Amino acid sequence: MNTIGLIAFAFVGSSKAIREEFDLLGITIVGLAMAFAGGATRDLLVTRIPLALQSPIEVGLGLLGVALAIALSVILTAPETHPLTLVADAIGLAAFTTTGAIVASEAGVSALGIVAIGTINAVGGGAFADILLDRSPFILFEDFYASCAVLGGSVYWIVATFEIAGGMAAVACAVVTVVTRFVAITYDVTLPTLQALRRVGN
Amino acid sequence: MNTIGLIAFAFVGSSKAIREEFDLLGITIVGLAMAFAGGATRDLLVTRIPLALQSPIEVGLGLLGVALAIALSVILTAPETHPLTLVADAIGLAAFTTTGAIVASEAGVSALGIVAIGTINAVGGGAFADILLDRSPFILFEDFYASCAVLGGSVYWIVATFEIAGGMAAVACAVVTVVTRFVAITYDVTLPTLQALRRVGN
Amino acid sequence: MNTIGLIAFAFVGSSKAIREEFDLLGITIVGLAMAFAGGATRDLLVTRIPLALQSPIEVGLGLLGVALAIALSVILTAPETHPLTLVADAIGLAAFTTTGAIVASEAGVSALGIVAIGTINAVGGGAFADILLDRSPFILFEDFYASCAVLGGSVYWIVATFEIAGGMAAVACAVVTVVTRFVAITYDVTLPTLQALRRVGN
Repeated sequence: MNTIGLIAFAFVGSSKAIREEFDLLGITIVGLAMAFAGGATRDLLVTRIPLALQSPIEVGLGLLGVALAIALSVILTAPETHPLTLVADAIGLAAFTTTGAIVASEAGVSALGIVAIGTINAVGGGAFADILLDRSPFILFEDFYASCAVLGGSVYWIVATFEIAGGMAAVACAVVTVVTRFVAITYDVTLPTLQALRRVGN
Repeated sequence: MNTIGLIAFAFVGSSKAIREEFDLLGITIVGLAMAFAGGATRDLLVTRIPLALQSPIEVGLGLLGVALAIALSVILTAPETHPLTLVADAIGLAAFTTTGAIVASEAGVSALGIVAIGTINAVGGGAFADILLDRSPFILFEDFYASCAVLGGSVYWIVATFEIAGGMAAVACAVVTVVTRFVAITYDVTLPTLQALRRVGN
Repeated sequence: MNTIGLIAFAFVGSSKAIREEFDLLGITIVGLAMAFAGGATRDLLVTRIPLALQSPIEVGLGLLGVALAIALSVILTAPETHPLTLVADAIGLAAFTTTGAIVASEAGVSALGIVAIGTINAVGGGAFADILLDRSPFILFEDFYASCAVLGGSVYWIVATFEIAGGMAAVACAVVTVVTRFVAITYDVTLPTLQALRRVGN
């Protein structure tokens, strides 16, 4: 799952950079930033050297995502919204939330720390890529996306608190994240803005 | 004082996000980012796990600030410029500068490091919130705001160098920061741009 | 070389902030951010306290760059594109890439980690300064600039793998970075965007 996530995230980041007419290095950097900035932040928060800097395989998967984005940009105009991309991205979201929650839990942070690090691991890369593209991170005002990571991280903490058998929290976190994300994509679920809530109220 | 600061900072961040029509999660994230990003950066710079990830109470205070912003947004259009907000924010600025200076001083960094970490702790969250809102950090071109933290941090270092009784540096830092900020608000003090200096020169 | 780099980077950052009409503190912060954010990120990635926070001399050199930018802004309108600035900046780029590669290599990261940390050390400050100025980092779509650091870092790794005599990798890295950058400036080399490649293809 982590493998799919790395490729999907790098692919989405690079596709956005291509549309902004960044040069080849810019495309590579935005793709790698989207794939690795979340995990690097997670590792910094628990004060260890980012895993991606030590594992050539992980970086290789990111570069594969970048290459795919360049290759497919000839055929597709917005490959990051293709159904297959959305599915791969949802799997990556679930994998990254779960990894983040596990790392946080091992570092002994509080319940809210587990949710925070799970979410940062999952959406931090995408947020950083958007900052590089000079926009507000899309997770803050569009889509039911980071919310899935928040839900998954919360479920991780609840299950981890009560669980008997090991590993159940990780499975529950991954399932909740990916299922809520699929539901959100299928039914076009979004979180409301306060302005929208007020219009409903009137 | 730190308590007031956390609530005030989260409140200001969330209020800005509401005005940008971010969704409920975006409002929460920007509020928490404003309250905690400065402290997290401070902790990363002295290589320790951010305190906020270990203390549920701190995050609770941040969430209280977010809830206040949502509640008051019904009544006020720009609650972050309300006099009470400015006072609470100034107290937070002083509290955060002082905490940052203490942590830096314990980590054994240089004099300029103390000023830098005090200032980053105080204004880093606000700067990061502005980046999330896709603007230049307001502290860089508006107001006499970060300057108060720079002054407070400098005073901390001077007093700490000469002090006999413990704790005096912290008190002096907090007082200088909050007083200069109150003076700046009352008399509308701003630092000049070079362009403004040149116009005066002609 | 590192000395020249610190002054040049702070000078370029401050000059950009002056043109954006930031106030005096903003000019200082953007200049220091450009000089030190890359190195601070490098140190965070290998989990140690940033050197700049411990060395008053380094910060002093940064402040000298800021002061130069303020002084020269009276005479020149775009001092950051002056030939002398470009030369000093290229030397800084080479010095920072080399320092980053050495630190990464000592921290025992992978080959790609060496290239990544060398590049981040060299161009991270400039990228962060551009984010503070609310633009996309220029390194992502303009110029053959970060590419020189990527080439230099790669050469460092190759030479370090085969070298017999110590220090050869550092020399090779610095020479490759500075020479490719000079060539890029002289002949106006840029990396193509995919859009440009396609226009050539038709």
